Amino acid sequence: MEYNKITPLVLDAIIAIVGAGNVINQHDDLEKYSHDETEDLVYYPEVVAQPQTSEEVSALMKLCSENRVPVTPRGAGTGLSGGALAIKGGLLIAMERFNKVLEIDEANLQATVEPGVITEEFMNQAAAKGLLYPVDPASKGSCFIGGNVSHGSGGPRVVKYGTIREYVLNLQVVLPSGEIIWTGANTLKYASGYNLTQLFIGSEGTLGIITKIVVKLIPLPTLDALMLASFATNEAACAAVSAIFRAGIVPSALEFMERRGVEWVKEHDDIAFDLQDDIQAFLLIEVDGNNQDVIFADCEKINAVLESYDCKDVLFADSSAQKEELWRLRRTMAVSVKSNSIYKEEDTVVPRAELPRLIKGIKEIGIKYGFESVCYGHAGDGNLHVNIIKANMSDEDWNSKLKFGIKEIFELTVGLGGTLSGEHGIGLVQRDFMPIKYSEVHFALWRGIKSVFDPKGILNPGKIF
Amino acid sequence: MEYNKITPLVLDAIIAIVGAGNVINQHDDLEKYSHDETEDLVYYPEVVAQPQTSEEVSALMKLCSENRVPVTPRGAGTGLSGGALAIKGGLLIAMERFNKVLEIDEANLQATVEPGVITEEFMNQAAAKGLLYPVDPASKGSCFIGGNVSHGSGGPRVVKYGTIREYVLNLQVVLPSGEIIWTGANTLKYASGYNLTQLFIGSEGTLGIITKIVVKLIPLPTLDALMLASFATNEAACAAVSAIFRAGIVPSALEFMERRGVEWVKEHDDIAFDLQDDIQAFLLIEVDGNNQDVIFADCEKINAVLESYDCKDVLFADSSAQKEELWRLRRTMAVSVKSNSIYKEEDTVVPRAELPRLIKGIKEIGIKYGFESVCYGHAGDGNLHVNIIKANMSDEDWNSKLKFGIKEIFELTVGLGGTLSGEHGIGLVQRDFMPIKYSEVHFALWRGIKSVFDPKGILNPGKIF
Repeated sequence: MEYNKITPLVLDAIIAIVGAGNVINQHDDLEKYSHDETEDLVYYPEVVAQPQTSEEVSALMKLCSENRVPVTPRGAGTGLSGGALAIKGGLLIAMERFNKVLEIDEANLQATVEPGVITEEFMNQAAAKGLLYPVDPASKGSCFIGGNVSHGSGGPRVVKYGTIREYVLNLQVVLPSGEIIWTGANTLKYASGYNLTQLFIGSEGTLGIITKIVVKLIPLPTLDALMLASFATNEAACAAVSAIFRAGIVPSALEFMERRGVEWVKEHDDIAFDLQDDIQAFLLIEVDGNNQDVIFADCEKINAVLESYDCKDVLFADSSAQKEELWRLRRTMAVSVKSNSIYKEEDTVVPRAELPRLIKGIKEIGIKYGFESVCYGHAGDGNLHVNIIKANMSDEDWNSKLKFGIKEIFELTVGLGGTLSGEHGIGLVQRDFMPIKYSEVHFALWRGIKSVFDPKGILNPGKIF
Repeated sequence: MEYNKITPLVLDAIIAIVGAGNVINQHDDLEKYSHDETEDLVYYPEVVAQPQTSEEVSALMKLCSENRVPVTPRGAGTGLSGGALAIKGGLLIAMERFNKVLEIDEANLQATVEPGVITEEFMNQAAAKGLLYPVDPASKGSCFIGGNVSHGSGGPRVVKYGTIREYVLNLQVVLPSGEIIWTGANTLKYASGYNLTQLFIGSEGTLGIITKIVVKLIPLPTLDALMLASFATNEAACAAVSAIFRAGIVPSALEFMERRGVEWVKEHDDIAFDLQDDIQAFLLIEVDGNNQDVIFADCEKINAVLESYDCKDVLFADSSAQKEELWRLRRTMAVSVKSNSIYKEEDTVVPRAELPRLIKGIKEIGIKYGFESVCYGHAGDGNLHVNIIKANMSDEDWNSKLKFGIKEIFELTVGLGGTLSGEHGIGLVQRDFMPIKYSEVHFALWRGIKSVFDPKGILNPGKIF
């Protein structure tokens, strides 16, 4: 695709649409929009616009479509796959002024929110009304719900409550043509033509720009219990995971953490936690509900499973302060690992019972290519985040050899029935690995769908495929 | 689109692919395939083929694509929107020989099934291993799981467990080109490009033919309770529905039944049930779980809600025989209504709290146009099946005036935030009402998607749009 630069005339038109105070085109001010949380990638957009209404987004899209200017939509910039980077320059549409929770409808257990609302703020507003919105990625305190929808986000509670796919009922989107549509209806069931809502979820801003989101809410559970189980090997910890479900328990979270990750959190974050020498891996297991006896019985069942999987120790959090501390251990792990080393993060996902084979294989590939890795993630979903650490790897190996190691990790993942990403998306950085899993037939279908929505290819070009 | 008839040469090629014993082309034998459960529609295919493998389906698709012969895929023929009718003639691909449960993977809580497996048979096989597959349409004893996927089916337990969208992980499909692909991965989370699996769910056999289905299973709850609540008015019953959720309870079923439906079941099915004169409507409410105390407490909470919504009586089923009898009341209602009168069934869905307005409006529209209606359905999902009864309506009014009444019902539904179908699909019979909800922009996107998958338009032509 050929794209045009933003001319002074187009810039004037952008300013006319959103107002001069909501346009950024000075290099220093653009820095914030030149990167996300994906390693060290930097791409400057030419101009950033901060619209506030669907109509403004529509006018911007029409303008860019007519002038063949590439458009990159951006939420909070917390993405881990480079999806919000303006790799072709052009206009970046920053959604931060779409920051209102428009309605929490307590009669229908639904809410309508703008895409620039911070996920945790919305969760808190829902919780204040006794309602649960359970899609809480680790970045919930800073990410936007619009970005969550665009990436098909998960988080620890997917294991019981499902991904964002099961909560988004309807979306208002602006198409590259400037048309504004609702993708579906505000209903719990939908069998009325191809499901455009589901197609937009996980489409990484390549089909249209989301301007309103209707989500389902559920009653808020009132009680929970949290336990931390310690294991001598990664494989033992991972093997226990599927056995817990097999025992008839669906925990509200089931997270895996490798020792090295815990060590780095302790260093980085000063978390009080006694790390025994013989422990290699942890499972953080939460059970929630509304009845203390049931939760207690579930914990006992889980405990019995853990014992039969050679668990060394189980710590039950006995206060909300201790629960918070254990969750902080897990939630800050990404930041701690990243502050310790140059890294690359991959987001593998396999059927749950394949986790032991996945983690064993990842370590073997690391030995072969000379890299270390710190793994953690949503083990209950078979979703393992693999942080590859530069450590003693030479710059040359890091820059030239590593990609073959990553390729082997994905080949292993796909061979185990999995895929490249469970919740981070493909974006820019996983794009080249897609042929490991997908054939030319898939690419042709995806490209075809893309061109139906965006025949000029102006929206978030160069992402996914 | 222009289509060709099946020539003797093409027929020979079909026979060569699936064998003469699996080809039907005698008019009498084709009768079974000329209708589904949608009112009184009859369309004969020219030929029926009964393939048994993906490769045979692929060969048939290539053949029909090359010869521009329309192809209609068909499951069990239990559809309620005409989706499986060969309205352009051509080849009907009957999936009844794809009848194997290929694997129930207890380690991963997944199963791989062929599309021609009867839903209830699969549910029973899963239950025998302590696992729940909860998508049970009223026709579960005869419908195929492939048809369920193609229609995005629901059933009574959607209210707690979600629709089939939340259980299908991956699909093997044969595209109109004959290519065989898997749409995704066997994983609980998926953020790897446009979600083709979700796009196929509910696409009513217009994008490809499903040949294998990987579904998620969950631990089977061990206990349940069932109660039947009686109300003096439809509106009172419907108003109680959203209040139950607001009280923090998510029942495993929450069904609405109108008096007239119950009367007809009693006549048709000889169900022992004492119907009081002052009762107009019922809610059938099920709660499930693994702890008797919790279930009992939930029932008490529900009871308190029901009392505050002017419920006249609550009957608790005190044996499995009584539970079965109450469920039979609900499950046979469609058949009973249909055996009593010429009818048309519409599948409205609205946000849950709009149900009282929906049912009140439907009755008003009935008075205006002179038709009666019997309503029942999945009230917990806001999904109401509206059976329009011919009764005293003249043939002329039935054939010419009624469609304007149906149009008004859908206008009401859409005005309340709903859509045309929650679980029956659009197929042939709702197609003309789609513009009530959807704009030319939607149609252009849908047609565009269709032509990406099926550029020659040979697959299930004339359905949805």
